[in-house]
Amino acid sequence: SYPSIRPASKVQEMHVYEINELDRNSPAYLRLSQKEVNSLGDLVPFTNKVYSGDLQKRLGITAGLCVLIQHVPEKNGDRYEAIYSFYFGEYGQLSVQGPYLTYEETYLAVTGGSGIFAGAYGQVKLKQLIFPFKIFYTFYLQGIPDLPEELLCTPVPPSPEVEPTLEAKAGQPHAALHNYTD
Amino acid sequence: SYPSIRPASKVQEMHVYEINELDRNSPAYLRLSQKEVNSLGDLVPFTNKVYSGDLQKRLGITAGLCVLIQHVPEKNGDRYEAIYSFYFGEYGQLSVQGPYLTYEETYLAVTGGSGIFAGAYGQVKLKQLIFPFKIFYTFYLQGIPDLPEELLCTPVPPSPEVEPTLEAKAGQPHAALHNYTD
Amino acid sequence: SYPSIRPASKVQEMHVYEINELDRNSPAYLRLSQKEVNSLGDLVPFTNKVYSGDLQKRLGITAGLCVLIQHVPEKNGDRYEAIYSFYFGEYGQLSVQGPYLTYEETYLAVTGGSGIFAGAYGQVKLKQLIFPFKIFYTFYLQGIPDLPEELLCTPVPPSPEVEPTLEAKAGQPHAALHNYTD
Repeated sequence: SYPSIRPASKVQEMHVYEINELDRNSPAYLRLSQKEVNSLGDLVPFTNKVYSGDLQKRLGITAGLCVLIQHVPEKNGDRYEAIYSFYFGEYGQLSVQGPYLTYEETYLAVTGGSGIFAGAYGQVKLKQLIFPFKIFYTFYLQGIPDLPEELLCTPVPPSPEVEPTLEAKAGQPHAALHNYTD
Repeated sequence: SYPSIRPASKVQEMHVYEINELDRNSPAYLRLSQKEVNSLGDLVPFTNKVYSGDLQKRLGITAGLCVLIQHVPEKNGDRYEAIYSFYFGEYGQLSVQGPYLTYEETYLAVTGGSGIFAGAYGQVKLKQLIFPFKIFYTFYLQGIPDLPEELLCTPVPPSPEVEPTLEAKAGQPHAALHNYTD
Repeated sequence: SYPSIRPASKVQEMHVYEINELDRNSPAYLRLSQKEVNSLGDLVPFTNKVYSGDLQKRLGITAGLCVLIQHVPEKNGDRYEAIYSFYFGEYGQLSVQGPYLTYEETYLAVTGGSGIFAGAYGQVKLKQLIFPFKIFYTFYLQGIPDLPEELLCTPVPPSPEVEPTLEAKAGQPHAALHNYTD
């Protein structure tokens, strides 16, 4: 009953930026702990914009939930458990789960995907540039066919100053995925 | 240290209906955004009944959380990030994550499973028939042994009018999985 | 475009204890249903400590969310949908999703991982010893290289009385992972 095998242990890297342009009413910090300091019990639904690693193209959005796990006073920051997806228009979606620390780089699990990402597994590196508004991701994807060229690029080196092109911000046709998720 | 390989890239299709019969106090729409229109910040825990695609058999339940991402006025609907599982009694469970749009068909990631679904990956198509009470799903599953016959069937073509048989609704032994999840 | 195959269908067992020592303000039971009995709508963010199966070593923490699905009066308990991760210091993290029943053993899906757990799949058995403060887990992991020896052990047979060693509770260097998650 096992006629074939899972293809593609090849690792494909994909780079994207997640940017909060303050136009999506995100994040929604729900202070359900009713404490003054960020505490377990707080929940943070969010959705931001996603751009290609070279910042030339609008790809889509992120969408999901951060669960505040603990305030870390010695780092002046917080630990979250993050559960969310990256949307890439008609190409489909990647789901991830894992640690989001406001004060250092982390790796999260890629838990699956749909469309061209169906069957994806691997991990993703999260590098924060400006809290919580600009994040650079490097996906290490396995289990899927070769990514389309427009999702591959030489990334702009991550720094707090990087910005998408004006055309990408405007979602102009040559600077956005066809039917990009918005 | 890699003595063997992941079996079964074979895709197996499985069809199920998810139906809200208004007897589970579901969904619980938590208007945590405190806004009048559905908005980021709202959370929607839910649990519905699951029937086989031919509507002859009660299989179990769904259970999970929808995170309201955005209201989409031009579609008179909403985008959710959905994180939930499908329960199949003693056979185990499938977990999924991805987009739920109240106004169009979507694909979600299958992120894993337990029991006979341990190691499952792939995607699932979500086709809404009556918002939010009747949904038809087609799973495209990989990574698992051949599904048992009672989970396979020729589905009733999805339409808003379809209903499970009375025997299935009643969970009668010949019209339900043994120890179906309820 | 598929140059290679997914390695390692070999199943590796890993045993851990999750213990609530009442020092993390966890769980945060959010009674958002506003009902007197636990009901759909209630959410329960949580984080507990994780020890090796032989209780000789502090490994890290759990972090995530339980979604109350239904109160089960005949069992004097509750069904939750649980979405969380296990953290193992510099080794990385495992994400899981599935059923948590306060009254019986369950299996959850392993949905992915990071670090040495990148690409992990399979399932995990959850055996509750003291509700909700002491739980014994057996992971059945596939898709990853051989686990390091310090994550493998002969577990202490699960019972309500088991306790980590004092050295492990104190996180002493010889009784904890290097840079264990805390």
